[in-house]
Amino acid sequence: MIIVMKPDATKENIQKVEERLQQVGLKAHLSTGEDCTIIGVIGDRKKIANLEVSMLEGVEKTVRITEKYKLVSRHFHPEDTIVDVDGVKIGGKEVVVMAGPCSVESIEQLREAAKAVKAGGAKFLRGGAFKPRTSPYDFQGLAEEGLKMLREVADEEGLKVVTEIVDKDDIELVGKYADIYQVGARNMQNFQLLKALGKAKKPVMLKRGLAATISEWLNAAEYIMAGGNEQVIFCERGIRTYETFTRNTLDLSAVAAIKELSHLPIIVDPSHGTGRWEMVRPMARAAVAAGCDGLIIEVHPHPEVALSDGDQSLTPKNFNALMGELGKICDVMGRTL
Amino acid sequence: MIIVMKPDATKENIQKVEERLQQVGLKAHLSTGEDCTIIGVIGDRKKIANLEVSMLEGVEKTVRITEKYKLVSRHFHPEDTIVDVDGVKIGGKEVVVMAGPCSVESIEQLREAAKAVKAGGAKFLRGGAFKPRTSPYDFQGLAEEGLKMLREVADEEGLKVVTEIVDKDDIELVGKYADIYQVGARNMQNFQLLKALGKAKKPVMLKRGLAATISEWLNAAEYIMAGGNEQVIFCERGIRTYETFTRNTLDLSAVAAIKELSHLPIIVDPSHGTGRWEMVRPMARAAVAAGCDGLIIEVHPHPEVALSDGDQSLTPKNFNALMGELGKICDVMGRTL
Amino acid sequence: MIIVMKPDATKENIQKVEERLQQVGLKAHLSTGEDCTIIGVIGDRKKIANLEVSMLEGVEKTVRITEKYKLVSRHFHPEDTIVDVDGVKIGGKEVVVMAGPCSVESIEQLREAAKAVKAGGAKFLRGGAFKPRTSPYDFQGLAEEGLKMLREVADEEGLKVVTEIVDKDDIELVGKYADIYQVGARNMQNFQLLKALGKAKKPVMLKRGLAATISEWLNAAEYIMAGGNEQVIFCERGIRTYETFTRNTLDLSAVAAIKELSHLPIIVDPSHGTGRWEMVRPMARAAVAAGCDGLIIEVHPHPEVALSDGDQSLTPKNFNALMGELGKICDVMGRTL
Amino acid sequence: MIIVMKPDATKENIQKVEERLQQVGLKAHLSTGEDCTIIGVIGDRKKIANLEVSMLEGVEKTVRITEKYKLVSRHFHPEDTIVDVDGVKIGGKEVVVMAGPCSVESIEQLREAAKAVKAGGAKFLRGGAFKPRTSPYDFQGLAEEGLKMLREVADEEGLKVVTEIVDKDDIELVGKYADIYQVGARNMQNFQLLKALGKAKKPVMLKRGLAATISEWLNAAEYIMAGGNEQVIFCERGIRTYETFTRNTLDLSAVAAIKELSHLPIIVDPSHGTGRWEMVRPMARAAVAAGCDGLIIEVHPHPEVALSDGDQSLTPKNFNALMGELGKICDVMGRTL
Repeated sequence: MIIVMKPDATKENIQKVEERLQQVGLKAHLSTGEDCTIIGVIGDRKKIANLEVSMLEGVEKTVRITEKYKLVSRHFHPEDTIVDVDGVKIGGKEVVVMAGPCSVESIEQLREAAKAVKAGGAKFLRGGAFKPRTSPYDFQGLAEEGLKMLREVADEEGLKVVTEIVDKDDIELVGKYADIYQVGARNMQNFQLLKALGKAKKPVMLKRGLAATISEWLNAAEYIMAGGNEQVIFCERGIRTYETFTRNTLDLSAVAAIKELSHLPIIVDPSHGTGRWEMVRPMARAAVAAGCDGLIIEVHPHPEVALSDGDQSLTPKNFNALMGELGKICDVMGRTL
Repeated sequence: MIIVMKPDATKENIQKVEERLQQVGLKAHLSTGEDCTIIGVIGDRKKIANLEVSMLEGVEKTVRITEKYKLVSRHFHPEDTIVDVDGVKIGGKEVVVMAGPCSVESIEQLREAAKAVKAGGAKFLRGGAFKPRTSPYDFQGLAEEGLKMLREVADEEGLKVVTEIVDKDDIELVGKYADIYQVGARNMQNFQLLKALGKAKKPVMLKRGLAATISEWLNAAEYIMAGGNEQVIFCERGIRTYETFTRNTLDLSAVAAIKELSHLPIIVDPSHGTGRWEMVRPMARAAVAAGCDGLIIEVHPHPEVALSDGDQSLTPKNFNALMGELGKICDVMGRTL
Repeated sequence: MIIVMKPDATKENIQKVEERLQQVGLKAHLSTGEDCTIIGVIGDRKKIANLEVSMLEGVEKTVRITEKYKLVSRHFHPEDTIVDVDGVKIGGKEVVVMAGPCSVESIEQLREAAKAVKAGGAKFLRGGAFKPRTSPYDFQGLAEEGLKMLREVADEEGLKVVTEIVDKDDIELVGKYADIYQVGARNMQNFQLLKALGKAKKPVMLKRGLAATISEWLNAAEYIMAGGNEQVIFCERGIRTYETFTRNTLDLSAVAAIKELSHLPIIVDPSHGTGRWEMVRPMARAAVAAGCDGLIIEVHPHPEVALSDGDQSLTPKNFNALMGELGKICDVMGRTL
Repeated sequence: MIIVMKPDATKENIQKVEERLQQVGLKAHLSTGEDCTIIGVIGDRKKIANLEVSMLEGVEKTVRITEKYKLVSRHFHPEDTIVDVDGVKIGGKEVVVMAGPCSVESIEQLREAAKAVKAGGAKFLRGGAFKPRTSPYDFQGLAEEGLKMLREVADEEGLKVVTEIVDKDDIELVGKYADIYQVGARNMQNFQLLKALGKAKKPVMLKRGLAATISEWLNAAEYIMAGGNEQVIFCERGIRTYETFTRNTLDLSAVAAIKELSHLPIIVDPSHGTGRWEMVRPMARAAVAAGCDGLIIEVHPHPEVALSDGDQSLTPKNFNALMGELGKICDVMGRTL
């Protein structure tokens, strides 16, 4: 941490800051510039993390230099982490595609969707059984009934299952049917849920919060890893901006950022990221070209009758066409699909 | 809902939309303009809420006209709701001030803070016992020990207690010590927590999410009211914008918006809203002038040694000075402090 | 400036940075922490401003400590600046109100508006003769004809004139009729216009850009002052955020920020800041309570037939009621209206 | 336009709205729903554009259905526009790369950069001679001297020139040396400049404003086209969001949006879009995969001594490597480089 003193800070002001640092076992390192004095704080990472000095007289501002996360950081773990889901490897050479409807609505709908995504080359079936919805009057999902359908249909087609968990009490229940726990954007900083998933035995896909910074996202993943679960996958799903043409603004630079800062895999959700099915294809191609490790895409056999997110769902035909394109981009990137 | 057809939509396209509406029991009302046809959808509110037609050929976009919330809406409940906490009335003539430290750190710290805020005229003691922190390595609060201290010290001073709840499993525990449950910004759309609080017997103060729209905030309150708990208080605490000089951008227009759209009270948190103690005073005055029903303010006897949020905490002396100013603004507004 | 080295930066990396600093006449001051080395850069302000070292190997990031603006800064000019417009003083004890229609439409409309705002207690007549509009097909203003009307009507009522300038070629023309040049949000970083206004002889009211940071805004004012024109007034008019209920998000904390960082006066525009006339009253009150030096408010004798911004214009009756309230808030603040 | 009436609007309220529409020559089309009445406004596009009725009693809100731009719209011009710059075609099969330093600093620097970008396969040399800088004390560019260098060096290498124009008085001057006028983000809504460029004889590359919506951007282009200049190229360069890890958030979904809404070409600037040279490569690849018609990339022979934007400039070596990758992505997209 660096403490920037005000231009008119007195010697006593600076001394008080130094004393405060000594009290908590930290050392001060002064640089006296033309305009002001800056104080480098040296010592134990954790002590610095909890230091608050802005209230001291003469202090202009403090600047944090080091991030608080460690287990998710590439600094401390330079090689890529590969999350292995019974043989399907996320974060390796393969770009893994997860696809299916937004919500599980019925066994027929799900089976039709599963057949289609399997035919297109997806490895995972996605589908929500617990739906966090803005309004209490919106369709909230089929709960365990939906989970059972997911497992049944996925097994029929030889697919893995990824599905959302919204309550820490459901860890066992969801874990019984799913291969990956998905934490949605609204729960990215539901720390009780993250702590509980830190004790879970299956991988967690952590979606970026609606307006989460990269740094907050990494710290959220740190909660899971700090609990002992090292199988974390990031999922960029668009951030909230002033633009209203798209549902969210898909931030593909997050792919490059995560690859630089962390060793964990990152996948991209162009369906929620744009909210418009016509945009899913170009953005899915772009995501792979940016270097992501996978995609999660909404596919619905009949989007016009979907109970949720029909606007952003691909038809099986469009999904198929997309997969053809993605295969070629994967080739260029030295990856497989 | 209104469905806007593309300029080149055909008669068949329009017919298909009409048929789809009929299928789900809704009626279409066509207006044919110069550039395009628009279709007004008429019928049951709930059916419209779940309608998805953007995938149908020829549809340009859909525009939702009515909000989904109802119980929180002033349309359906024109008079102001007053939340009565054992005689302290929030939403009435009085502007209710809640004050205290960010975190409960020790009984001595809390007692000193409580005496100060009581002396200044606060009616509630605030203080976090469960702290949702960005990093797992930050101070996470004293839990039940902290709750006990809050109750003990509040009772000594004749104050009420407002404190954060982060886990639905803690409803009984927190309810044993607190008078108001506070839901923090990060949990505004933790629907499991909201549903559980809908069954609780004490009032809920619902902070606005980091990047929540007014509409999402109202819908989140609807979750609580739909569960049966009608004692909900909104709390504006700043939204996330591109500006970095302040910690958040305190959106005081939200006070006017909530007053227009809802019958529920709204209080303002200028401490988190700005993140800078020097700004708390002007923004607290502004909040009262904008028409808020209360304030929640961080006061710490020794901000420079606080375990969290020292930067934004007032000293007892500054809090006192602020309360003097607020009293005069309340006079102008025809309110009391 | 502070240069933060990567944890794995080598001695040679650090040496290269030191050499680079020496080359341009700056000095390095090293602090070696547990995780990384940080280098304080000491020396001439301007040299530091132009320094770029992020490309050097081993550099993690650079952090700028000092702002580039100087003339607008309170550090270098501690006392408040008062802009004196022929006896109407902006930045002193009086809270100065500027009011009138968005656009000058006709002499009748303007005269009716001027009478109303004068009666309410405004000191300035506002009204646009050159309108920067999103679409080329929107009403673009009456140009010089509008300026003439403004002057004529203002003189009849004993008001001053503030009006927007959109083109540096119009400085003489606008200056002939107006008392204050208004620079709109879209032109806040139109540096050619700012430079030209730096040579002008009348005060400039500089609106905050749509998504401008406080720092960029101060630097924009520095352009005007650096040209020799010291009569600059800031105007907060709302910033762009994700919220769509209001046209912009009025950032009243900017009032406190400008007061802390600069000696120049700041006024607030609650009309553009909210885009909703019902919100103008509470937000105008809040702005005065936050400590602003003035207000600019849209008042239209017949808002429902306005050629622009009717949605956010007050009727004369509402304006009058507002002024009554503001007078009382001014009393509390130790100011006059 | 659709007018949504309040649930408690009276028959007289609705009648007043209808009368107002009649007065200005428009027709009303009523749909009476369960919750409220909505009024479709039918008639002349331009009359609707200037209609303001929100002030009328009983009106809840108005919703605009049709965009105001026309010349830039794909509705009115379905085929792609190709901008032909002396044989280099932008918007056709080729993905056109423009590269060079942020600022023109010296003939040696520029020549070295030009040789490098030519060798890599760029068709345009970029470089700023007029620099709009946040602070008046930052390097402002070499002006005409810089333009001359650009032309000279570009001619030596057989490159075209694209460079920024910041002042309408410079149209002739810049046009003498440049092949494309670049309008920077800060000037996207400098309507005086846009109008003047509408009369110019050379193509205009219009960068997206810092916080401009897609719709505002299209309307800004409409200003140029409405003046008679049909050679407009969009340039996405990142938007301002809350994220601070990147300089801006590069919005690649804007590529798909522009392709859908307009017939004009769009290129992408991954250098300003990210502000970090390490991210330029992945984001350039992603941009091409998303379907852009070109790229503008900062390349500096010695980024560590650049007078501006060194942090985001590629070395010639990195540029070369990038061009190799882009060629392969172009193949997949059925395009050439």
